[in-house]
Amino acid sequence: MLQSDSLKITPHSKIKRAPKRAVYDRQQIYQIIDQALVAYLGFNMNGQPFVLPTSTWRDENKIYWHGAASGRMTRGLLEQNICISLALLDGLVLARSAFHHSVNYRSVNLFGQPNLVTDPAEKEQQLKNFIEHLFPNRWQELRPMKDNELKATAVMSLTIDEGSAKVRQGGPLDDKEDYQWPTWAGVIPVHTQWGDAQPCTQLKADNHDIPSPNSVLAKNRVK
Amino acid sequence: MLQSDSLKITPHSKIKRAPKRAVYDRQQIYQIIDQALVAYLGFNMNGQPFVLPTSTWRDENKIYWHGAASGRMTRGLLEQNICISLALLDGLVLARSAFHHSVNYRSVNLFGQPNLVTDPAEKEQQLKNFIEHLFPNRWQELRPMKDNELKATAVMSLTIDEGSAKVRQGGPLDDKEDYQWPTWAGVIPVHTQWGDAQPCTQLKADNHDIPSPNSVLAKNRVK
Repeated sequence: MLQSDSLKITPHSKIKRAPKRAVYDRQQIYQIIDQALVAYLGFNMNGQPFVLPTSTWRDENKIYWHGAASGRMTRGLLEQNICISLALLDGLVLARSAFHHSVNYRSVNLFGQPNLVTDPAEKEQQLKNFIEHLFPNRWQELRPMKDNELKATAVMSLTIDEGSAKVRQGGPLDDKEDYQWPTWAGVIPVHTQWGDAQPCTQLKADNHDIPSPNSVLAKNRVK
Repeated sequence: MLQSDSLKITPHSKIKRAPKRAVYDRQQIYQIIDQALVAYLGFNMNGQPFVLPTSTWRDENKIYWHGAASGRMTRGLLEQNICISLALLDGLVLARSAFHHSVNYRSVNLFGQPNLVTDPAEKEQQLKNFIEHLFPNRWQELRPMKDNELKATAVMSLTIDEGSAKVRQGGPLDDKEDYQWPTWAGVIPVHTQWGDAQPCTQLKADNHDIPSPNSVLAKNRVK
């Protein structure tokens, strides 16, 4: 499918506050989505706004997540326009005045009505994509999925069509007369990193030798 | 003010999915809130769910955030019940089956109608609390806040009253017959850490000697 290079700019997705930080470019937005470990789904339940943190993954022009097939959230999400929000915090920006303190970040907001993946083969393929997104080559090392597990799992998607990103980078922007102010100013980067793998206490001794190098050692994907 | 030890359990805040992970204890919920660098505000704008990532801080039984006094988000938030969601991702849990893969996390959802802080002194005090929450003792090192800056900034709060936390910790919980499966299983911890401070390019040479040790070196607060 031929896609436009930028997402749809609508009253929802148009960035009004600090528009110089706005990004509508599809590829840049994909990169941010692919790096996020958690996204936040916004929807209504009986008129009350709800936000649900969940893991997401992307396949081409869709963002996916999963949930319990029987869950109230799962059902409630499907019948409305939702918002998906995710943000990567890259740094704390320390200026000479409180007012100009800021953060460096890359955030994405997406809008639209989600779809349920109903075809079992497509559903299993997407769950494989989810595992492989976090741990390349791990799927083949796992006990194969059972029918009842697949049935108990709902996979949902949202087409990446209406949305935008917001990006702030760089050092503090102080008022001209404040650059002389005698305090430290700059950026403190924020990193998300894997720690040392902690083997399951019930891991058989000979399985310690299979530290799933292709998967566990996907360490370097974290920003 | 005398407070109950646990938050109000309502149809919104009651955890139905995996109830053994539910936490309603006020002090535990405060600890999670205090560690989060970003929270996600869920609200409606013209009937469309919106999620806004923002920095929050806590003072006693209220969670606070700030925004542009003139912003559409700021105004829209105040006239409705909102949801505030924040999650700390502690680890990726690798099981022997895809189905039992999980994450270790501590998340909080809060509900209620926010308030605008209108008293200028209280507003400035809360902005000080915000800076000091991230960088203890930095406020006194900054160029003092100006009236027009204070006027341009809106500070909002939500009383921490209706809400709940959800916590998952520990290793993978596999099906009994799967513990023999020949693959690695365990937890990969996720850490959020400060990187090396990057001085502003316009920092005066003699200000490099004031690396704001009390503030920048609040490094160790990150989990």
